[in-house]
Amino acid sequence: MVYRTGSELRAAARSGAFTEHTSGRAPGYVQANLVVLPRDWAYDFLVFAQRNPKPCPVLEVGEAGDPCTSVLADDGDVRTDIPLYRVYEHGELVEEIPEITSRWRDDLVFFLLGCSFTFERALLDAGLALRHQDENRNVPMYRTNIICRGAGRFLSSPMVVSMRPYLPRDAIRAVEITREFPGVHGSPVHIGDPEHIGISRIDRPDWGDSVSIRSGEMPVFWACGITPQLAALVSKPPLMITHAPGYMFVGDRSDYAFHLSG
Amino acid sequence: MVYRTGSELRAAARSGAFTEHTSGRAPGYVQANLVVLPRDWAYDFLVFAQRNPKPCPVLEVGEAGDPCTSVLADDGDVRTDIPLYRVYEHGELVEEIPEITSRWRDDLVFFLLGCSFTFERALLDAGLALRHQDENRNVPMYRTNIICRGAGRFLSSPMVVSMRPYLPRDAIRAVEITREFPGVHGSPVHIGDPEHIGISRIDRPDWGDSVSIRSGEMPVFWACGITPQLAALVSKPPLMITHAPGYMFVGDRSDYAFHLSG
Repeated sequence: MVYRTGSELRAAARSGAFTEHTSGRAPGYVQANLVVLPRDWAYDFLVFAQRNPKPCPVLEVGEAGDPCTSVLADDGDVRTDIPLYRVYEHGELVEEIPEITSRWRDDLVFFLLGCSFTFERALLDAGLALRHQDENRNVPMYRTNIICRGAGRFLSSPMVVSMRPYLPRDAIRAVEITREFPGVHGSPVHIGDPEHIGISRIDRPDWGDSVSIRSGEMPVFWACGITPQLAALVSKPPLMITHAPGYMFVGDRSDYAFHLSG
Repeated sequence: MVYRTGSELRAAARSGAFTEHTSGRAPGYVQANLVVLPRDWAYDFLVFAQRNPKPCPVLEVGEAGDPCTSVLADDGDVRTDIPLYRVYEHGELVEEIPEITSRWRDDLVFFLLGCSFTFERALLDAGLALRHQDENRNVPMYRTNIICRGAGRFLSSPMVVSMRPYLPRDAIRAVEITREFPGVHGSPVHIGDPEHIGISRIDRPDWGDSVSIRSGEMPVFWACGITPQLAALVSKPPLMITHAPGYMFVGDRSDYAFHLSG
């Protein structure tokens, strides 16, 4: 199912009609990663994001207790508008649920972080195909050996990356295009040999689905907004709620609003 | 006096030998705005910065109680390395002092914000002159009618801008060049008519010095890191310490490290 606007996709997710991953499902509309934390932990997370801007580009921060968005979407509600959520307690993933209304509290703060799905439109517009969309899969994501800087109780932890395969000439263009979107992960963090960043099995992503890499193509890796979920595993905040990998918050703003000149 | 490195300028400021503004005084080294707040206010400020990234691009955040830098300079001390500081109490400027060691506390957090002095090197390298440097003055800075978004106790308040005059063809190049430095204010916020952004007397800056605007030139305005000082006037944190306008923290890193591709 493809929706005409971010608002329509959110309404479908809210009603339970849409339960799938969101890559390519509302073409042209910004997508974002969700992190929800108690106010007590919010400062440490915001400093963590400042120190690791490639995986954690913050696009919107809510006020404590308020689940309503105002920057990425006029009437978004982070409790209901994402197709699938993950709940972490003390560093353990305790459940995946389709909405978090019953989990919401007056001291919770939401963060929406830029997502590489936002620059995918620019890649498509430049004629660069997206293998995971062509194969109707979720984008593959991997844990790496690139270590993020800690901040307070948010400890050093591995960066997560998403991967798209390209021929070398298209990999170069993908660098040029995505550097212009620093608010949604920007340019790649690595090109080529997966082992160099600690990925031993490119055909077995840690999240999302495996995609084909054809002869002559090289994997291109971008920082990924799943990174805070790995940080939660080691930092063990009492409660942290996120989207499930690939199931994003979809906003009302154009992807191109997040271009450097947007 | 011009220093060979940021480290040499900091040492001179620390010893009291250097007491002047810092534009052009350590060519090639990053310069930064300082904001020091009690930990209790630090979260609100960091969200304010996230909501107003053009005037408040955060480059480094210290740990509570620690005045030592590790990102912009290896051995910097924000208590002593700036030539002149301002101390605000409950929204009032109470003193300008050459060091803040006696004011430091275990609950204070420092923020270093990008400064337009950093992209001045790129302007010079492209052959665009800097009028304030040519006239041996501090850059002119103005209060505008552009309103920053509030965050918690950091209230909505006017954006401050710095101004450099250019012929139209050079103004265009200045836009192209500075957009590539989003971490140090990025592209201008306004070009041309000062009244359009609430500046009635271009010859009377609110901070810094007036500079000549020659026939055919237009003023070009960039967001300025003095903006948080105006926010402090209305938001009235019990204590906020900043650099004095034009008297910046000078780091060890190259200006070009803050280029989009740096």
